[in-house]
Amino acid sequence: MASLTRAGSDLHRLTATEAAARIRSGELSPVDLVDACLSQIKAREPAVKAWVCVEAEQALRVARERADEAQVGRFRGPMHGIPVALKDIYHVKGLVTTAGADPFFHQRPESDAASVARLRAAGAVVLGKTTTTEFANMDPTETRNPWNPEHTPGGSSSGSAAAVGASMAPFALGSQTVGSTLRPAAYCGIVGFKATHGRVSTAGVVALAWSFDTVGILCRSVADIALGVDVLSGYDAQDPASVDMPPPDCRAALSAAAAPPRLGIPRRFVETAQPETIEHVYAVADRCRRAGASIQDVELPPSFVGVQAAGRVVVGAEAATFHADNFPARAQLYREKFRGTLADGAKTGAVDYVRALRQCRLFRREIEALMPPFDALLMPTAPAPAPRGLASTGDPVFCAPWSCAGVPAIALPSGVAADGLPLSVQLVAAPWNEAELLRTARWVEALLDWRSEPR
Amino acid sequence: MASLTRAGSDLHRLTATEAAARIRSGELSPVDLVDACLSQIKAREPAVKAWVCVEAEQALRVARERADEAQVGRFRGPMHGIPVALKDIYHVKGLVTTAGADPFFHQRPESDAASVARLRAAGAVVLGKTTTTEFANMDPTETRNPWNPEHTPGGSSSGSAAAVGASMAPFALGSQTVGSTLRPAAYCGIVGFKATHGRVSTAGVVALAWSFDTVGILCRSVADIALGVDVLSGYDAQDPASVDMPPPDCRAALSAAAAPPRLGIPRRFVETAQPETIEHVYAVADRCRRAGASIQDVELPPSFVGVQAAGRVVVGAEAATFHADNFPARAQLYREKFRGTLADGAKTGAVDYVRALRQCRLFRREIEALMPPFDALLMPTAPAPAPRGLASTGDPVFCAPWSCAGVPAIALPSGVAADGLPLSVQLVAAPWNEAELLRTARWVEALLDWRSEPR
Repeated sequence: MASLTRAGSDLHRLTATEAAARIRSGELSPVDLVDACLSQIKAREPAVKAWVCVEAEQALRVARERADEAQVGRFRGPMHGIPVALKDIYHVKGLVTTAGADPFFHQRPESDAASVARLRAAGAVVLGKTTTTEFANMDPTETRNPWNPEHTPGGSSSGSAAAVGASMAPFALGSQTVGSTLRPAAYCGIVGFKATHGRVSTAGVVALAWSFDTVGILCRSVADIALGVDVLSGYDAQDPASVDMPPPDCRAALSAAAAPPRLGIPRRFVETAQPETIEHVYAVADRCRRAGASIQDVELPPSFVGVQAAGRVVVGAEAATFHADNFPARAQLYREKFRGTLADGAKTGAVDYVRALRQCRLFRREIEALMPPFDALLMPTAPAPAPRGLASTGDPVFCAPWSCAGVPAIALPSGVAADGLPLSVQLVAAPWNEAELLRTARWVEALLDWRSEPR
Repeated sequence: MASLTRAGSDLHRLTATEAAARIRSGELSPVDLVDACLSQIKAREPAVKAWVCVEAEQALRVARERADEAQVGRFRGPMHGIPVALKDIYHVKGLVTTAGADPFFHQRPESDAASVARLRAAGAVVLGKTTTTEFANMDPTETRNPWNPEHTPGGSSSGSAAAVGASMAPFALGSQTVGSTLRPAAYCGIVGFKATHGRVSTAGVVALAWSFDTVGILCRSVADIALGVDVLSGYDAQDPASVDMPPPDCRAALSAAAAPPRLGIPRRFVETAQPETIEHVYAVADRCRRAGASIQDVELPPSFVGVQAAGRVVVGAEAATFHADNFPARAQLYREKFRGTLADGAKTGAVDYVRALRQCRLFRREIEALMPPFDALLMPTAPAPAPRGLASTGDPVFCAPWSCAGVPAIALPSGVAADGLPLSVQLVAAPWNEAELLRTARWVEALLDWRSEPR
């Protein structure tokens, strides 16, 4: 991606890293960049329906401020002038947070979510808010896949993935509790990432299940993920799940040349995907091997069995706790799938919950123990390309275990399927190893001849 | 304590630190030290009943090995030749773990608990196992307070506290889930300590409630706590609650002279104690102030209200999870109080559990936010001296919040009450601040004219 040459009229196709460099060198004005994104939104939004609101005037006003600052050599941070889209579960001061839900649940927050504040402090320009499935669960939005409007963009971060996939924004925040960032990234042909649970504050983000909720990043290159992780990481006493670990320096990690990585392939898990996906993952592995990577089979640990079911128990119970003031009292205001999740969660016994959460924790430890011989595990991001229709957001089966384990994971667009929709591979690493994961991801990214974009 | 001069015949009254120094200098043989403890056990055990088993022959055999090693200048670690007592919830290879429970539940472990292995690796000599209330909850043992056999030694670490209080061992492991180490330490006139939750591995310790379970240390000086923390701390992938933080160097922290500390007094909490205890704590505070400490009132945060009730919900549900294979099927094999705990826990809904655990986590964060102006909070360890009778192990009200918060806390013997039983003050610090807490505790310890021992 990073090696693409782009015409001046294609400013909206620049990655965040490319655009930030041009802004810093004076070649590019943040106003022109935001303008280009707004034009692309105008062109593509009627078909894609990725946005809840586009704050065009506000974004142009802020872009003008950033342009003025840039002209006098003042840069707020590494995202100075970069337009960003925010999934509508992130609180943004002055905007309603809909969480994709009935207006009864809408909130008008007093302040920005911690991650939004960090993006702004780094110089980013908020373009607007993107659609989310109801409360970031599974009841779909009207958003369509930018590659084919007859297909789902995935979810729950449907709007953020579709907006980036349609080049309406270079960078977006999603969230992942089960498979809500990497799966839509895969379906929309973009890069998606979640950090170790506790690495990025979730303060000011509407909760689904605290034990798994993570801030997700959607963009178009591994370098942009590194930029985002560096900006977003850090301890936050306001988030009870935040862990006080030294933040990574992912951009520094990418600036050094990476040796060919050691990749583990959980073959038995990979082979539960659709045949075209299995074949594709093995073809990517072969390409990696020919370029010098060590490729080894790896057996997932015993606690892998049932960990997804355990994760569902945890999500249901925690979601039911977050919604206890409104459910079951206002059950009719929730959509069908989430109503089912809440009903199950409200009935769950503490013993079943504790046992389920302990299985997820055990799985994390067993993954940690299994990782030292590998830089990352390689597998599909989703069992197949984006399903047809908007009734389902697709199957999170390849993402869920890594959300239960709270480990970092990245989805890389890696090819185009027979049906013309994107294919994606996923790399997963040990807890806190974001910098190492991104170094490996960049090495793999450079091998992939991913040059297509929709339309 | 450390300044006491002791006659040769009083070897069993040496602190672990004093004894270790003498062993290293060649003045003292580990065999004579173990012999002195065994003599004291012979003299005091019939009245105190602190032990489940005393492994005299085995201890003497190991002491002889340590003595031989010392003679050729080989020292295994900082506890070379130090006799230790282990609460009978710690797995010790070759010994039955009773957990104070019906023989149906007894286990014969294949290997040592992680903390026992660390003590042995540091050179410690296992003397035997000490009594515990049933599953470290509240059903009392037959153990008596070494200061007055008509009174409880407290619990659940009844035997470890009584053994150290009666100078039958210089160092013992207890455990604290609610108030099970510091409270018995207070009642028995000794030093008791718990580290930050996750600092010391609980692998191989019979669980009560994973979210709060911590290894406890019982001994007779702050220096011995430092020794114990340094030996016991460290990440353990086998314990899902273990946190990968750099271990503290508490002995180094104590080797430097400490400035007078900044102490916060949660006055409204302190004043829920009995009048004699309140007066005593304020007298200790006054003495600290006169010696240069800054003493300031502090208001506990909003989440303090109800945190103990929340903690009970968490303990019940996690205990019921741990015992789910046996309860309610074998309810009649459990004693009354724990049966009640398990029955409540088995009925608890996941939503109530999640909410309760979140309140504890919030309390931890609010305590963390409140601590920076203080080196420690000062308060009673228990509302009154050890209650009369053996029916109750006393009230954990002053320990429970700090167990819910998972923060480090230490109990210091600080005087003798009108009834002739020990009084104790407690110091509490921010998470991971063990070294700073012990520096403050040593400064306070030096001010206390604690020179009494029972009999």
